[in-house]
Amino acid sequence: MDYSRFFSSDVPSFLRSPVREIFRKVDLSAIYSFAGGYPDAATFPIADIKRLSALVLEKYGAKALQYGATQGVTELREAISRRYGVPVENIQITTSSQQGIDVCSRILADPGDVVLVNEPTYLGALQSLRAYRADIQPLEGFRGFALKEELSVREAIEARGGFKRPKFCYVIPDFQNPSGQTMSLEQRQELVLMARELDFLIVEDSPYRELRYSGEEVPTIYSLAPERTLHLGSFSKIFAPGFRLGWIFGPPELLEQIYVCKQALDLCPPILDQYMAAEFMSSGALDANLEKSVRLYRSKRDLMLSLLEKYMPAGVSWTHPEGGLFLFLTLPEEIDTVALYDRALAAGVAYVAGSFFYRDGSHRNTMRLNFSFLDASRMEEGIKILANVIKL
Amino acid sequence: MDYSRFFSSDVPSFLRSPVREIFRKVDLSAIYSFAGGYPDAATFPIADIKRLSALVLEKYGAKALQYGATQGVTELREAISRRYGVPVENIQITTSSQQGIDVCSRILADPGDVVLVNEPTYLGALQSLRAYRADIQPLEGFRGFALKEELSVREAIEARGGFKRPKFCYVIPDFQNPSGQTMSLEQRQELVLMARELDFLIVEDSPYRELRYSGEEVPTIYSLAPERTLHLGSFSKIFAPGFRLGWIFGPPELLEQIYVCKQALDLCPPILDQYMAAEFMSSGALDANLEKSVRLYRSKRDLMLSLLEKYMPAGVSWTHPEGGLFLFLTLPEEIDTVALYDRALAAGVAYVAGSFFYRDGSHRNTMRLNFSFLDASRMEEGIKILANVIKL
Repeated sequence: MDYSRFFSSDVPSFLRSPVREIFRKVDLSAIYSFAGGYPDAATFPIADIKRLSALVLEKYGAKALQYGATQGVTELREAISRRYGVPVENIQITTSSQQGIDVCSRILADPGDVVLVNEPTYLGALQSLRAYRADIQPLEGFRGFALKEELSVREAIEARGGFKRPKFCYVIPDFQNPSGQTMSLEQRQELVLMARELDFLIVEDSPYRELRYSGEEVPTIYSLAPERTLHLGSFSKIFAPGFRLGWIFGPPELLEQIYVCKQALDLCPPILDQYMAAEFMSSGALDANLEKSVRLYRSKRDLMLSLLEKYMPAGVSWTHPEGGLFLFLTLPEEIDTVALYDRALAAGVAYVAGSFFYRDGSHRNTMRLNFSFLDASRMEEGIKILANVIKL
Repeated sequence: MDYSRFFSSDVPSFLRSPVREIFRKVDLSAIYSFAGGYPDAATFPIADIKRLSALVLEKYGAKALQYGATQGVTELREAISRRYGVPVENIQITTSSQQGIDVCSRILADPGDVVLVNEPTYLGALQSLRAYRADIQPLEGFRGFALKEELSVREAIEARGGFKRPKFCYVIPDFQNPSGQTMSLEQRQELVLMARELDFLIVEDSPYRELRYSGEEVPTIYSLAPERTLHLGSFSKIFAPGFRLGWIFGPPELLEQIYVCKQALDLCPPILDQYMAAEFMSSGALDANLEKSVRLYRSKRDLMLSLLEKYMPAGVSWTHPEGGLFLFLTLPEEIDTVALYDRALAAGVAYVAGSFFYRDGSHRNTMRLNFSFLDASRMEEGIKILANVIKL
């Protein structure tokens, strides 16, 4: 039976994640995978979690298993409020920060609405925006011509014959996925200026912010423009991705629509998991674990950079991230990483082709490499294989 | 700052749950609440869950905390497959069965698409359908005129000058929320016949099916028409709602689109929770706990029916459910349960006005009462108060 006649008009725009497809078909443990955004399992606080689940069931009993508030459990919102200095009423818990992206897109984006993104950008954001048939445009384009002409953004745009106002701009300012790059304070201020002048909102996706290995912390966009920013946080990289918990900071008026929307999405986030995350955060265990993770990932990043230096052929360049989980390779123009992928996989190594992070599938000579997942010896083996595949 | 200029066209159609609003404002423990669909906390297998979380972390380690497959973890899909006799490839795990409703609506319903529902029907389904701006129509209307004229459904509809083909029909065949009523085998067969003749799909929402206290089990619609049914299951009433886990049975071609859609919604359901549910199911603990729950709820339903008999004034009638969590009261025409609500709350008792379960807000002389949440003595006290409020 052909079901296509039943599908909504959004379905043909759905974008399938090539990353998820890789995991569907390949046994990760059998290859050297630089593909996923998987944390190192060594950072998971298994002993803490065993203790926390017993503690939470003891402390909260049935309350930890019952339905809960759509905004999230109070204890977790309060723990987040204390940690980040944001009032409780500006905090909504989400069932993963992917849900944060989805629910922001859902309340803001109509088919055809312009949404600005960095290029390359996070695949899951492209998936969500495509599913709402947004008109995805590169932020760089908007920014570039304003600066070059030394006009205000609005003057520049009007000089070019008008524009369609963007609804919002989606950015990952810290250790971006996939590029690993961090926006400077000036770039953040410029984006805020643009958002105020052109009257659009900013969705600041911030899953990696606390994984900084070098350099100086830069203020969040939310702190620069709280009145027009929805800031997305995640427990996936500071606790464990299996919990599927994240949060949104934002103006209460926007959170109110997100709250109503979320009732229809899943009523409320998982309760036991939220209490465990709250205890993990407020007991200080999170900070201890985070310190350990940052140390581990710093050494992995440094190792990855030195391995690339050692094994990659001439003509290959890469970014030097100050944090996060990824760096981005640019290969000689004639190398097509999409075409190369099957050969890499056959040789035992996986990556994600960089073109998947561009809305138009361009930049086929790039790739994203994750440096958090593999341990040191496997990382060296994997990079050696990958370098050989590229050389051939 | 007024944010309305940023909102998508769906936002004005969002429906706020009055049930969730009640919980936002009222301390449940301070009143006699017949409002929510809350299971009795006594049915939560707290000791099992303590044991399960330790066992799962021991058995699966970091795997229970890492990202997982979008379809759900294999062990849980296999446990569900064994229990319900449905092949693994026809099973998608959802982050709550509310997400099941949302994702089905998302892949099927365009603005203006006709979706048939029973009236009254589940508020969360109305919320989801309204959010996609579906044209919600009563199933009863479609069914009624076909039967009366003794024509085929299609002939009857064509005799009335054509029709807009429904995309799908949403029903809760077993112990419906809010009415408590169960569709007979004949009604299910008739719906399947109609779906085949008019070519629409059926979304069968089945959260209460295993909570049967009397009468004979009726086959699921999915078993009658697996090729055009999406069957939604839930762990909320057989395990614990706090886990936010459900599942969908359906044709693989439909599940494939749900799988791609779910990547953008939340990547994957919570992993530790899924492993715990899998162990709970396959160890036999679920069956033991379910038997206990059914016994408890049977006595509560019987008590509720006898209390209504004892305290309610003449002119009030109610349904006699064979299972589930709810029954539905019809009061004399002149009583408006929406207007009555504040007085009831002031007297210390909460219910949900029946009109919230009708797409047009009609039937203001009805109310939904939950009989699972309160214990016996509080239930009697609550019904006494409610009866007095109705009498005034």
